[in-house]
Amino acid sequence: MTHKKLITGVRDTSFGENCLVADSVNIYEATFGNDCFIGPWVEVQARVVIGSRVRLQSHSLICEGMTIGDDTFIGHGVMTANSKYPKVGLKDWECLPPKIGSGVSIGSNATILPGVNIGDNSVIGAGCVVSKDVPKNSVVVSSSRMRFLEEQ
Amino acid sequence: MTHKKLITGVRDTSFGENCLVADSVNIYEATFGNDCFIGPWVEVQARVVIGSRVRLQSHSLICEGMTIGDDTFIGHGVMTANSKYPKVGLKDWECLPPKIGSGVSIGSNATILPGVNIGDNSVIGAGCVVSKDVPKNSVVVSSSRMRFLEEQ
Amino acid sequence: MTHKKLITGVRDTSFGENCLVADSVNIYEATFGNDCFIGPWVEVQARVVIGSRVRLQSHSLICEGMTIGDDTFIGHGVMTANSKYPKVGLKDWECLPPKIGSGVSIGSNATILPGVNIGDNSVIGAGCVVSKDVPKNSVVVSSSRMRFLEEQ
Repeated sequence: MTHKKLITGVRDTSFGENCLVADSVNIYEATFGNDCFIGPWVEVQARVVIGSRVRLQSHSLICEGMTIGDDTFIGHGVMTANSKYPKVGLKDWECLPPKIGSGVSIGSNATILPGVNIGDNSVIGAGCVVSKDVPKNSVVVSSSRMRFLEEQ
Repeated sequence: MTHKKLITGVRDTSFGENCLVADSVNIYEATFGNDCFIGPWVEVQARVVIGSRVRLQSHSLICEGMTIGDDTFIGHGVMTANSKYPKVGLKDWECLPPKIGSGVSIGSNATILPGVNIGDNSVIGAGCVVSKDVPKNSVVVSSSRMRFLEEQ
Repeated sequence: MTHKKLITGVRDTSFGENCLVADSVNIYEATFGNDCFIGPWVEVQARVVIGSRVRLQSHSLICEGMTIGDDTFIGHGVMTANSKYPKVGLKDWECLPPKIGSGVSIGSNATILPGVNIGDNSVIGAGCVVSKDVPKNSVVVSSSRMRFLEEQ
C-alpha cells in the first residue's frame, strides 16, 4: 500500500503588513497582524488569531483556536495544547485553547496546557509546564531542579 | 570543504490502507498499520512497528526499535530515547526502545526514556519525563510545578 | 496582504571534512570541524563554533554564539537559549550563549539556559532543564518525577 500526502505550507491565512515567514512551516486558517516573524518548522492551526509584532520561534506549535496579543515572544520548541484527554477518533472533544496576552515572553521548550490564560507582560521560563493561569506581570519558572548523580 | 547531504523523506517503509503522511517527514525501515496520521517534521526510525489508527503529531520522534499498538495518540514534540548513555562513536551500545501499548495518549513535549513500557489506555501528561514503566489504565503527570518569582 | 519568505538552508557556513547534513536544516554563519552529523530540522545560528565528530540530532536548536567541543552528542529536540528575558523588539539585549565541552552527552528534550557552562564528559538526562553550570564528568538528571493520578 502506498500513502496519501498531506501538503504543508501556508493555506487560507491572512497576514498584515510586513510579516516574514520561513519557507518550511504549516499554517492554515489563521490570522496575523503586522510585522510578525514565523521561524522554520512552526505549525499554526485553524482559528488562531495573532496580533502584531509577534515572534514565533522555530519548532513551535500554536494549536487550534488560540489567541495571542501584540509584541509577544514564543520561544523555540514551545508546545501548546487544547485537549485535556486527546484520544484518537474522538468526535466530541472539548477544544480548550490557551490564551496568551500582549508583551508576553515564553521560554523555549515550555509547554502550555489546555485552557490556560497567560496575562500581559508575563515571563514564562524555558522548559516550564504551564498548568494554570498566570496573572499579568508574573515571572514563572519550573520547580524542576537539576539533580546531580555523579560529580567530581 | 563542502558537506554531504542526508536526503530525508520516506524510505523502505510499509503502510497499511489509508495512511496520511505529511510531505516533510523522515521515516525509514518502519511498518505502519491502517489509517495512521503522521504530521509534519516527524521522524520514525528503523525497525519501528506501529499499529492502526495511530496519530503521530508534528515534531515527534519515534526512535529505532519501538513498537506502538493501535489507536494511540502521540502529541506534538514527544521525544523517545533508546540509549541510556548516548555517546558519539560508540559501537556496541545497548538499544533499549520504549514500548507503547494501545489506546494510549501521550501529551505534547513529553519525553519517554529508554526501555520504558507504557501500558494500554494510559494517559501521559504534557511535558512529563517518563522514566519508569506505566501500568495500563494509568494517568501520569509531571511532578514539576510552576514557581512564581514575581506576581502582581 | 501577502508575506515575505525567509529562505532556510545552509548559508555562510564552514564545514570540515566528511560532514553529513540533512536536507532540511537552517544553518547560518557557523563553523563546524570534521565528521559532524546534523539531523533533520536542526537550526544552528550565527557565530556558533562546533568541533569535530559532533552529532546534532533532529529538531535541536543551537543558538547564536554557542561553542561546542569535540565528540559531543546533542539529543533530539534539545533547545538552547542565550537571552534571559527575551523581548520582542529589544535592541540592546545581552547575548549569553551556553558553552558545551567535549565528550558531552545531552539527552533529548533537554533545555539549556543562557550562560550555562557544561563541562567535558558530562551527561545531561533527557528532559532536564539545565539552569546552572555543570562541572566536568558530572551526571545530571531532572528532579521532576512522574506523579500517578490514577493507577490500576
